[in-house]
Amino acid sequence: MRVLGIDPGSLVTGFGIVEKRRNNVAYIDHGEIKSPPGGLLPEFLVEIYERLMDVIREAKPDAMAVEEVFYGKNVRSLIRQGQARGAAILAGAHSGIPVYEYSALEVKKSVVGYGRAEKDQVQNMVKALLHLSEPPPADAADALAVAICHIHSSGRMPRR
Amino acid sequence: MRVLGIDPGSLVTGFGIVEKRRNNVAYIDHGEIKSPPGGLLPEFLVEIYERLMDVIREAKPDAMAVEEVFYGKNVRSLIRQGQARGAAILAGAHSGIPVYEYSALEVKKSVVGYGRAEKDQVQNMVKALLHLSEPPPADAADALAVAICHIHSSGRMPRR
Repeated sequence: MRVLGIDPGSLVTGFGIVEKRRNNVAYIDHGEIKSPPGGLLPEFLVEIYERLMDVIREAKPDAMAVEEVFYGKNVRSLIRQGQARGAAILAGAHSGIPVYEYSALEVKKSVVGYGRAEKDQVQNMVKALLHLSEPPPADAADALAVAICHIHSSGRMPRR
Repeated sequence: MRVLGIDPGSLVTGFGIVEKRRNNVAYIDHGEIKSPPGGLLPEFLVEIYERLMDVIREAKPDAMAVEEVFYGKNVRSLIRQGQARGAAILAGAHSGIPVYEYSALEVKKSVVGYGRAEKDQVQNMVKALLHLSEPPPADAADALAVAICHIHSSGRMPRR
């Protein structure tokens, strides 16, 4: 089973792909989708959507796992995270793969073993679990972590 | 000039189309996109996107005007509004029409003349301005109001 994990952010959306093999979880790919400062929102959303459509076409994941957003500096940041999340979920739905969601707490518990783990603990644990030479950038590490979490879990589909 | 107005909501997304003619603003269409309770989020977002793609294909608006979201009962509601907004803006961007945004304050000032107008004041003013036989439902009235606001304004494109 191959899983595409997504960490939708107000400025950067991270993605990561892992695959469940017999006794371990293998690293496939990761990346971050950014938009230049001052860019227009429609272009940024199109960028997230098109890039993820390409990633899904190439890597052929069996499922998408998206981090639930339940925090944010302010209302504007929450709306932006929601918009990025909407564009990512549409790419999954239009590609015909099921979409699952996990809270940051579930992801951290599943990957680090501790729900209140810090960002660098997640990065280091993802590095160790996937046998990477160095820790991935924070947004991509969170995306890889939610993909690993889906492999460890039965999964929950997001209600509207 | 024909404008498609959008009021993205956590449960219902309203849309409304108006057209600027020589001396007045004419009503073209309105509607509400709902999803059945308990439905899955990806299906709801696909519904918003596909329905708006159809509406744009048929009505051929020159621009999309989306209400800015700056309030919400809670974090979950804000994220949901952001997701719906993201799906709507993607439909505009994929259709090749420019997307503008207006705050609820700007919309109410432009349509009712008073930034703190209540929902029913907006509904009644939209009915009067567009010579409708009855006030449209609240979400569609807000969508028609943001479209009217764009016709009255120079416009602002949303930054990411």
